[in-house]
Amino acid sequence: MTSLLLKNVRIMDGDTADILIADGVISDISPDINAPGVATEECAGHIAIPGLVEAHTHLDKSLIGLPWYKNDVGGSSLKGMIDNEREIRNSLGIDMHVQSMRHALQTVSYGATLIRSHVDIDTVGGLRALEGVMETADKLVDLVEIETVAFPQSGLLLWDGTATLMDQALAMGADLVGGLDPCGVDKDPKGHLDIVFGLAEKHGKGIDIHLHERGELGMFSMEMILDRAEALDMKGLVTISHAFCLGMPDFRRVDAMLGRLSNMDVRIMTTAPTSSPAPMVKELDMHGIKIGAGNDGIQDTWGPYGNGDMLERAKFVGLRNNMRMDSEVKRALDICSGGGAEAMAKPRRAIEIGAPGDVVIVAGETVVQAVVNHSPRKLVVKGGHISARDGQTLVVAP
Amino acid sequence: MTSLLLKNVRIMDGDTADILIADGVISDISPDINAPGVATEECAGHIAIPGLVEAHTHLDKSLIGLPWYKNDVGGSSLKGMIDNEREIRNSLGIDMHVQSMRHALQTVSYGATLIRSHVDIDTVGGLRALEGVMETADKLVDLVEIETVAFPQSGLLLWDGTATLMDQALAMGADLVGGLDPCGVDKDPKGHLDIVFGLAEKHGKGIDIHLHERGELGMFSMEMILDRAEALDMKGLVTISHAFCLGMPDFRRVDAMLGRLSNMDVRIMTTAPTSSPAPMVKELDMHGIKIGAGNDGIQDTWGPYGNGDMLERAKFVGLRNNMRMDSEVKRALDICSGGGAEAMAKPRRAIEIGAPGDVVIVAGETVVQAVVNHSPRKLVVKGGHISARDGQTLVVAP
Repeated sequence: MTSLLLKNVRIMDGDTADILIADGVISDISPDINAPGVATEECAGHIAIPGLVEAHTHLDKSLIGLPWYKNDVGGSSLKGMIDNEREIRNSLGIDMHVQSMRHALQTVSYGATLIRSHVDIDTVGGLRALEGVMETADKLVDLVEIETVAFPQSGLLLWDGTATLMDQALAMGADLVGGLDPCGVDKDPKGHLDIVFGLAEKHGKGIDIHLHERGELGMFSMEMILDRAEALDMKGLVTISHAFCLGMPDFRRVDAMLGRLSNMDVRIMTTAPTSSPAPMVKELDMHGIKIGAGNDGIQDTWGPYGNGDMLERAKFVGLRNNMRMDSEVKRALDICSGGGAEAMAKPRRAIEIGAPGDVVIVAGETVVQAVVNHSPRKLVVKGGHISARDGQTLVVAP
Repeated sequence: MTSLLLKNVRIMDGDTADILIADGVISDISPDINAPGVATEECAGHIAIPGLVEAHTHLDKSLIGLPWYKNDVGGSSLKGMIDNEREIRNSLGIDMHVQSMRHALQTVSYGATLIRSHVDIDTVGGLRALEGVMETADKLVDLVEIETVAFPQSGLLLWDGTATLMDQALAMGADLVGGLDPCGVDKDPKGHLDIVFGLAEKHGKGIDIHLHERGELGMFSMEMILDRAEALDMKGLVTISHAFCLGMPDFRRVDAMLGRLSNMDVRIMTTAPTSSPAPMVKELDMHGIKIGAGNDGIQDTWGPYGNGDMLERAKFVGLRNNMRMDSEVKRALDICSGGGAEAMAKPRRAIEIGAPGDVVIVAGETVVQAVVNHSPRKLVVKGGHISARDGQTLVVAP
């Protein structure tokens, strides 16, 4: 772990001070810190915010750095998009290590110090995607912490052998068990969830399950997830990503479900999507539910959007939730930084003594102005180690 | 009107060629144009897209350039936000000419060559906002075309004298009659709309009415608008901004309304909002309804978001409408450029011979890549006149 002295920073919107990171942890915040022999960065009065947290993405999917992929498939069918991606990825012969390096480094350049990546496990690609992303995680360990979810994108039951590959992926070191749309993809919610929870129990790992199912269908699947989480006493160990169904209009139905989610300390990851229902921050906050956010896949076969910038994602969280007050925009930022880390069961990132030495120096008049303009990142620091400077990572993407 | 030769541009995603603008109009697109004596710009193979069109904003409202405004009001009550703005604007003593210059020039720096601005008319501010914005329109006439809508933000009936001020505003040169939420604000839809349409008839001007009302209430107001448009034979002269109610789930109800709107050639302006229902591009396109888009107010007392970038707005249109295919993203761009101009009843902007000489040179691998990354604008040209270069307008904001 590294030590670093950041001179002359504004602590969020507060006073100007110096920040000392010692052995990877913020050890002092005060004016005029004197630390002989410690590497020092002059920050010219720019704002210090906590390291950003990309809590839901797919590092194995991006096509950045490759010739432009012309999308003729669109977004009308989930199955169509899944099948298209498997074929395209195979036919292009994509190197998941190279692509995940490009994607992760771009995300770091925007200030992320912690990433959770779902990684496809299927019978066509086998464990190649996971191998590629884990190699990236190893290489970038000083710049960013990367956590992996073994993700059965093509279903657990449709292709013989997927469950075995998932088992191998978890033995290999994938950090969490993934899953998706127990009704919508496998058309066998009991079968799908029994495998997911069985793997979690066997490997003693948490779960992060994609749930795009809307309305009552999503609520049905969510109940089945909660039944198992309760039966297995998995409080705090289950995450539901997307959870579109929580954006349904029936607020009594949603409120009751939020109560049950809160009781099991289930965490919710959202992209704050604009074209679908979404879990609403204020309602989740009323129940104390931990929320993280992510950019999801960026520039992949699913769509051309996204750049890995979690400060822009904070803007999207704010816009999607009609957060107009300064205090609300700061909550949106928290979801994309300290709060997101908590949702990932990691130490809260914060500009506070004792917090991890993950700090982003950003230009801006105020924190809120920096969020809404996703202002330039001057410096990205992870555990006292400089990851990026002026938008350029210190490791160059392949 | 000005002449200009743009050398070595990619025509949208097509071939590289030169573009000659003569007397403000695109007069030739071909390789190796020779035009002695005409000012020439080397474009280094960057992409030419049509001038961007900001079809719904409020140039009199932005606080850009002023000390950061801390928002403690939020978005829970429309009336609360209206009242707050009137008071804040008065207490800060805002100069609407200076603010509209800042806002308009920032919008131009991102590539807009045509702007429709609603301008508040109320009994506190009188005609000051309109005077300020019209002064800006005059000063910037070579850089951007600015159209004004006399907009009764505080209602037409709640404050005695507003209708008279609206009449004066139109006599002074406001281009269109504005209105808003006939039920929601004045609580007198008949009274409100009779004044709006009466002013339009008297001054021979079109209408652009804000309609935030959702669900059946909005549909009711929309029907009252259509009744009057039909009775007064105002085909093609009525615009409805926001039209949130068209995003209601009852697709038969919406489809029937779209048929009626299409029949009267009513135009729809949208911001592609993320926290409210919104008119859906594909459904409107099926009825051939003209659509424009806008950033709405930017960085004002309503909220901190927005920067005037219509290429970013095209991204929002794409995201909001789940537009993932390249062809769909190009339609999103069209709504923010040529299609938006048509919705404003202005000549269509396009990279075609005979079209207005409004051209934006943008970096990017493809047009879609330029939209989703809202890539840097290299050059902004309006009617053959250079408005901005490398993000800097040639007129400096006060």
